[in-house]
Amino acid sequence: MRIWKLKKGSDQRLRSRHPWVFSNELMDSPRGLTPGELVEVHDYQGHFIARGYGNPHSLIAFRAMTFELKDFEIGSPTYVSSKLYTAWEKRIHLGFQDSFRICFSEADSLPGLILDRYVFEKNGERFQVLSYQLLTYGMNRIFEQATEIYQKLVEGVFSQKLSDIDWEHTILLQRNDVNIRKLEGLEVEEPKVIYNPKDISLTDLTILIPSVMATTLNTTETLKFNVNLIEGQKTGFFLDQTHNIRLLIQSLEGLIRVKQFTKEKPLKIVDLCCYMGQWSAQVAFYLNKKEIPFEVLLVDVSELALEKAKENLKQYTSKVTVMKADVLKDLGPIESNSFDVVISDPPAFVKNKKDMESGLHGYMKLNEQAFRIVKAKGVVASCTCSGVVQVTDFKNSLRKSILRSGKKVQLICEGGLGWDHPSLIQFPEGQYLKMLLHKVD
Amino acid sequence: MRIWKLKKGSDQRLRSRHPWVFSNELMDSPRGLTPGELVEVHDYQGHFIARGYGNPHSLIAFRAMTFELKDFEIGSPTYVSSKLYTAWEKRIHLGFQDSFRICFSEADSLPGLILDRYVFEKNGERFQVLSYQLLTYGMNRIFEQATEIYQKLVEGVFSQKLSDIDWEHTILLQRNDVNIRKLEGLEVEEPKVIYNPKDISLTDLTILIPSVMATTLNTTETLKFNVNLIEGQKTGFFLDQTHNIRLLIQSLEGLIRVKQFTKEKPLKIVDLCCYMGQWSAQVAFYLNKKEIPFEVLLVDVSELALEKAKENLKQYTSKVTVMKADVLKDLGPIESNSFDVVISDPPAFVKNKKDMESGLHGYMKLNEQAFRIVKAKGVVASCTCSGVVQVTDFKNSLRKSILRSGKKVQLICEGGLGWDHPSLIQFPEGQYLKMLLHKVD
Repeated sequence: MRIWKLKKGSDQRLRSRHPWVFSNELMDSPRGLTPGELVEVHDYQGHFIARGYGNPHSLIAFRAMTFELKDFEIGSPTYVSSKLYTAWEKRIHLGFQDSFRICFSEADSLPGLILDRYVFEKNGERFQVLSYQLLTYGMNRIFEQATEIYQKLVEGVFSQKLSDIDWEHTILLQRNDVNIRKLEGLEVEEPKVIYNPKDISLTDLTILIPSVMATTLNTTETLKFNVNLIEGQKTGFFLDQTHNIRLLIQSLEGLIRVKQFTKEKPLKIVDLCCYMGQWSAQVAFYLNKKEIPFEVLLVDVSELALEKAKENLKQYTSKVTVMKADVLKDLGPIESNSFDVVISDPPAFVKNKKDMESGLHGYMKLNEQAFRIVKAKGVVASCTCSGVVQVTDFKNSLRKSILRSGKKVQLICEGGLGWDHPSLIQFPEGQYLKMLLHKVD
Repeated sequence: MRIWKLKKGSDQRLRSRHPWVFSNELMDSPRGLTPGELVEVHDYQGHFIARGYGNPHSLIAFRAMTFELKDFEIGSPTYVSSKLYTAWEKRIHLGFQDSFRICFSEADSLPGLILDRYVFEKNGERFQVLSYQLLTYGMNRIFEQATEIYQKLVEGVFSQKLSDIDWEHTILLQRNDVNIRKLEGLEVEEPKVIYNPKDISLTDLTILIPSVMATTLNTTETLKFNVNLIEGQKTGFFLDQTHNIRLLIQSLEGLIRVKQFTKEKPLKIVDLCCYMGQWSAQVAFYLNKKEIPFEVLLVDVSELALEKAKENLKQYTSKVTVMKADVLKDLGPIESNSFDVVISDPPAFVKNKKDMESGLHGYMKLNEQAFRIVKAKGVVASCTCSGVVQVTDFKNSLRKSILRSGKKVQLICEGGLGWDHPSLIQFPEGQYLKMLLHKVD
């Protein structure tokens, strides 16, 4: 394995187990390495620090997969599938079932690999789609053996009863249609079905997502979302909001116990940037089980999203309205003080640092509307999925929103990524999602 | 009402609704004002900004109670009890029952007032102790009419069915035995029972604390804690960890479903700095209901705390051991890799900025032990209640703990104060409690 030495004094971050080395920290030029080749990194005196893979054409020249001297075979299907097994088991320990994220890149010691599991039923049988993205050259190379890796993984979790779905009911979907690959010198590819033994179409599936309140409701019944895994964003769907949705619903538990919501005076929810309607469907599923009358207004700029979201919501209530709108411009017609629950979960307004000012202004404008349309005693969930936005900056923009709304608002709690999207304490770069939950006077 | 003008340019913080004005921001000297007198603050041009109270002897010269021009009677029992009514109602909406914090100072627009409610039963009747601290001169003056304020409050919430306990079953306890009062020029007083119509002793009560998992367990049965409200810390007990305890228990839901804990191989919990045993009692109550065998080790430096905690835990299991120890020195004898759940909730190691370095070192040392004694696949809940410690600094000290332990650890989520301790987005000073929840490989 190729050895790269770090400059004197450049080893501190890596020694603290932050998994990145930048090219200017290397003693010699990284040129000559085949992109994605496995690399061992030493300090300037030649002491082992980490193994991983390199890319001479990327600003992040090296990404660590292990800090253990004993881990030799880091590129092998056996090694990678055993890492994925550990990651899967952790999610089971944290209570996840059916559809969840199996691997979250650096946090699971497989930098550059995003792997989500979507479970669906067909003809009375359960299937799983393992939908994944390869974001770096190193992972791209390792996953030339994708089928072998996943077969080992699926057979492993199946035999250990961490999963009830075998290899014959597994579908592999590679979603390398992501621009971030360009930073590594990789091509943006079309979605590609790698393994599909029963030849099932992935464009029109009904995936099973557990209720975030499953244990409270004491139900194994899941939510059902109609999705197109080939064309849907990211790996086909979003799984990252489970923690935040649970916090929101928990914040309503007292309200629905005390207040008498009726068919004439239902609890009113607005889902701003609803996409597939995950937030409001989860709230709706819960309220339905609790027999609380409610209404939902779905807002999105995409007609296709609204159509899908409406379809997903219709399972729980007939009281669904849609509104096609750019949330930064068109929310004016919504009446002030009219919703008990306002969900504000827009796409990333800040994609990189140069957009910071305008993006934060966007969050301020959107949430100003959120606080305008929320009723007295209502709650507002404000999210940002912009990784570069720090929580203090996000809070500052929300502070302005609240001030402009003229309302009195308490911050109840701060959320974050769902627990199947863990992070490393030494690697804050992974925590892209922030959520603040507010209670209005 | 006395009017104070701000210097030109000194109005920004107050206008953003941060409730404090420092003495050097005032146009004229604050001298001559009776400490605690009501004050109206204007900008340098004479425009109204806020009303509240002043103290010429405090660095924080002014604390705002309202930014509304219409709120004239801010010092009156009617105004204060109506603010408390709103605060109480909010807790009910957020699901709180029985014992909870009613007022959290600035966040509830009553700066300087901490008010906790403890419910207990005696001879088949329900009682409440309203235990409060007056931390500022202004609140101290306003609460010269404490009885009138609380009677209005209790009658209000009782008549509106937000509470089932009337004035005849209410006890008022003033806990002004806090050093922070000295910063205001106030005396540190002995605990004082202000109103106690049935003359009940407060030194040996069994208070009712709902399970943080009450809705999941579908139970109205509460935990019972034997406490001495006169001598117990703060207002007699701690109520601030409910959110964090819930997160911890939720992180175990999958583990106890998958792993077969038995009487011979029980789930093992260690509660470091257990005080009255709140954390472990809540976990124990839950595991008991779920019929999961478990054992608890309680660790504290105070023999009295250990005795009380053991008594509190004994209701749920006979498998309780105690260990009198200074957690910064004496944890060595505890075997490595021996607990499934490690709770690390020490007293504030950093009371003010000059203790920062040694305090952060303390958190590092304590959590190094926590990560040493946790088993593979276990969880660690690491807390700091030091208000001056920022979460990034706390994370940095924990990063070192993890590194020294040699274990691989994922950060699952970040907690914070219980929802009856809300904050203001413009006032981060209120958020003293941080909790990080870790999952070990």
